[in-house]
Amino acid sequence: MYIETVKQTMNLPDTVKILDTTLRDGEQTPGVALTVDEKIRIAKKLDKLGVNTMEVGFPAASDGEVRATKEILKLELDSRVCGLARPLRVDLDAAIDCGVDYIHTFIGTSPLHREYKLKMDKEEILNKSVEGVEYIKDHGITAEFSAEDATRTEFDYLKEVYLAVEDAGADFINVPDTVGVMIPSSMNYLITELKKILKTPISVHCHDDFGLAVANSLSAVEAGASQVHSTINGLGERAGNASLEEVVMALTSQYNIKTSIDTKLLVDTSEFVSRITGIKMPPNKAIIGENAFAHEAGIHVHGVLQNAETYEPITPEMVGHTRRIVLGKHTGANAIKAKLDEYGIELNEDQFIRVFDQVKRLGDKGKCVTDADLKAMSETVLGKAHKEIVKLEGFSVMTGDNVMPTATVKLDINGKVKTAAKTGVGPVDAAINAIQSLVGETADIELKEYNIEAITGGTNALAEVFVIMGDKKGNKATGRSTTDDVVMASVEAVLDSINKILIER
Amino acid sequence: MYIETVKQTMNLPDTVKILDTTLRDGEQTPGVALTVDEKIRIAKKLDKLGVNTMEVGFPAASDGEVRATKEILKLELDSRVCGLARPLRVDLDAAIDCGVDYIHTFIGTSPLHREYKLKMDKEEILNKSVEGVEYIKDHGITAEFSAEDATRTEFDYLKEVYLAVEDAGADFINVPDTVGVMIPSSMNYLITELKKILKTPISVHCHDDFGLAVANSLSAVEAGASQVHSTINGLGERAGNASLEEVVMALTSQYNIKTSIDTKLLVDTSEFVSRITGIKMPPNKAIIGENAFAHEAGIHVHGVLQNAETYEPITPEMVGHTRRIVLGKHTGANAIKAKLDEYGIELNEDQFIRVFDQVKRLGDKGKCVTDADLKAMSETVLGKAHKEIVKLEGFSVMTGDNVMPTATVKLDINGKVKTAAKTGVGPVDAAINAIQSLVGETADIELKEYNIEAITGGTNALAEVFVIMGDKKGNKATGRSTTDDVVMASVEAVLDSINKILIER
Repeated sequence: MYIETVKQTMNLPDTVKILDTTLRDGEQTPGVALTVDEKIRIAKKLDKLGVNTMEVGFPAASDGEVRATKEILKLELDSRVCGLARPLRVDLDAAIDCGVDYIHTFIGTSPLHREYKLKMDKEEILNKSVEGVEYIKDHGITAEFSAEDATRTEFDYLKEVYLAVEDAGADFINVPDTVGVMIPSSMNYLITELKKILKTPISVHCHDDFGLAVANSLSAVEAGASQVHSTINGLGERAGNASLEEVVMALTSQYNIKTSIDTKLLVDTSEFVSRITGIKMPPNKAIIGENAFAHEAGIHVHGVLQNAETYEPITPEMVGHTRRIVLGKHTGANAIKAKLDEYGIELNEDQFIRVFDQVKRLGDKGKCVTDADLKAMSETVLGKAHKEIVKLEGFSVMTGDNVMPTATVKLDINGKVKTAAKTGVGPVDAAINAIQSLVGETADIELKEYNIEAITGGTNALAEVFVIMGDKKGNKATGRSTTDDVVMASVEAVLDSINKILIER
Repeated sequence: MYIETVKQTMNLPDTVKILDTTLRDGEQTPGVALTVDEKIRIAKKLDKLGVNTMEVGFPAASDGEVRATKEILKLELDSRVCGLARPLRVDLDAAIDCGVDYIHTFIGTSPLHREYKLKMDKEEILNKSVEGVEYIKDHGITAEFSAEDATRTEFDYLKEVYLAVEDAGADFINVPDTVGVMIPSSMNYLITELKKILKTPISVHCHDDFGLAVANSLSAVEAGASQVHSTINGLGERAGNASLEEVVMALTSQYNIKTSIDTKLLVDTSEFVSRITGIKMPPNKAIIGENAFAHEAGIHVHGVLQNAETYEPITPEMVGHTRRIVLGKHTGANAIKAKLDEYGIELNEDQFIRVFDQVKRLGDKGKCVTDADLKAMSETVLGKAHKEIVKLEGFSVMTGDNVMPTATVKLDINGKVKTAAKTGVGPVDAAINAIQSLVGETADIELKEYNIEAITGGTNALAEVFVIMGDKKGNKATGRSTTDDVVMASVEAVLDSINKILIER
């Protein structure tokens, strides 16, 4: 309601174009380097997501960049494909030779860039800028011009440069906040002033050094900018760039501005880029984080169960996410009752209080309670003790550099003791293979996910293994174990998970 | 420079108080549950960091919350200690009984909260609010009042509630953007309007559902709010709360507003909270992320080497961070030359080009080049071939449920073949113990860090092991290996690291 009031004072465009730079800025993230094949796979995902333009690389930088750009052009995507280039003949020709029809050319304009990086004076930089844009336009290619570090450039000089490249035919004038120094108010002021003198569409490119990249981008849009540069997961140098998913969802849901993005694919695209780049997003990342639509506190869950809007600004479905209710120390009786109802478990008042107290006690000890834990507790209370249908009776494994990793397990399944030995690519794989060969005679349970993590520093640290097993009927259960032997932890986690599935059916 | 211009139009306070809610909102993060002991350890860190007030829990919620609150009060910190409570006698008494001298009381005021959560009408809620604040003040305790979901509450009603609690003696009036629906412009408008009618200091509490929590908090300060609620790492329900480190650094460095925070402790505090909660921050998180002051691209590194300000808005030292230069596919000749200079490696033009090409080629393949890699390459080019001083000749390991994990290794050290068998808590520990017992005769190298991660889903997935070994002289080297046998990967990574140290000295 407060947004409606302030919207009247804004100079909002009807639609905002998204120029995605995941393949360029995102790839410049320290520690990230994508192969040509990986770039192609991401390009396909971005195209499906619906970005207007994707900046795919800096062709003058390396042969790999040239190959990636050419291969992506071959895909004939709906998205436009843009190459980055300094306004130098060698850079521009490298991009042109790739066959792009959109070039983003940039040159530093701030005092620091003029003096320390370029060692050029104002006039030289202005001339290079104009020559660059003219050269691009002479080749019939869309030209976007960036005054690098614009937000630390003297305003009179910045206006001079932008007016000159507008004259030279630039199609988009980009305002990069290269070092992320802007705040929303100052970005709004700068774009408002530029809109007064420029006819060319204005684009913004914000960095997140103070966590303000998304807000600064939106503030620029409020002043009339009609294109936003952004990256999936906010990847990019240092603290990264404006995150596409946050910019797009704020525009869509808070400003009611249309973009070309299919928002339902945001979570999937984010997860894909995480896997390929190895840069994982934290659970508390807006829109796409694992917790973005998760609720734990008892106070809140009651509200969410009554009407999700009480604690959710948008539905998880809008972004391809799912809602998750987590039980823990703040969990109120309402949330637990709702969970028990969901699973059709009926408890009387006394039984319920016993389960409720147990959840609280576990919470105070620092433990989270999963659905399976809750079911196990309820079953105990109801007198159906949680049995170990499959019990480990004996286990050994052998590996080495010239040893075929081999594991032997002895399991008690429903009272029958069986033994099997299996090999694998490593000791954990061998162990799991042996367990599966025995359990497979009883049930078709297979491993769906396997995660391992060392909790503290040394090799004698605890290893936490987390597995998800499942059967063909769609029953799934998690298993978790934490011990100081990584192989034993894996075996225990797998057995925990198998027992939970067998009990459930 | 643009900030200076817009600052003249703002109603900025001289100082901003930081109310940290890591121990309350942060702990409500789904999946996080802190024990009393962990809460105490975090409280000590927050106190050292210099927060004005810390909200430590919701005493009415559980016995654990009561114990944590009491234990933290016993520490007699410089920071004020605040308890959360609904304006109900039972909640307020629980907080008062703990002995806090600051209570944050809240009640939902928006239509959604009135109808679906509280099932109370406007008048009842107003009365409860006033009674709650009066009860707190009757006990001589500082009272902060929150109209939960204020930003979706009808403005007339919101003003009525706030004026009533001001009359009742509230010391702080808090404006929670409970569902994170605000944008900076609307937050600025709301606080500006409230400042016109309220004399009481205004506090804000922002959620990050659209990635705008920090920007909205700053926007509130621009309108005159003088206290900001925030959490370390932006922890909290769903997408979390405003991140303390971003709010504080923007205030300090962009607005020139003083806070009580010792900014040099920000990185340390963030890492501590990550370790305790298990919620890791991504490398591209502003201020405290691993990459916040890392530089890869050749274009940028040149600038940074000349003058760090060209690409860094603040110095890493200000927040207790360090600068990191990463070599990769975008690395220019300048960055590599600087690195070689740093290590005193002299290459002629021809030798340099060979190293430079190799870095580029590795980059195109998706690999990052570490300092040790660069040294190894340079040494090869210089004719000093990178020797394996310690070579693995044979290895086997045995573990199981009734087996003492035992490893046997055969190493060739400087041409002498030696064998050792050692036990350990698990197979990896046993293997490393055996290697160390042999290498220890030659050099005092020990394990400093051990990290393991499964790269993809299954137990036959690649395990990536990353180790850091070091000797007493302070030489350190990383070792990395990726194979499908977690034990073998560990052995290879350790030997890689040992060889790098032995070559270096």
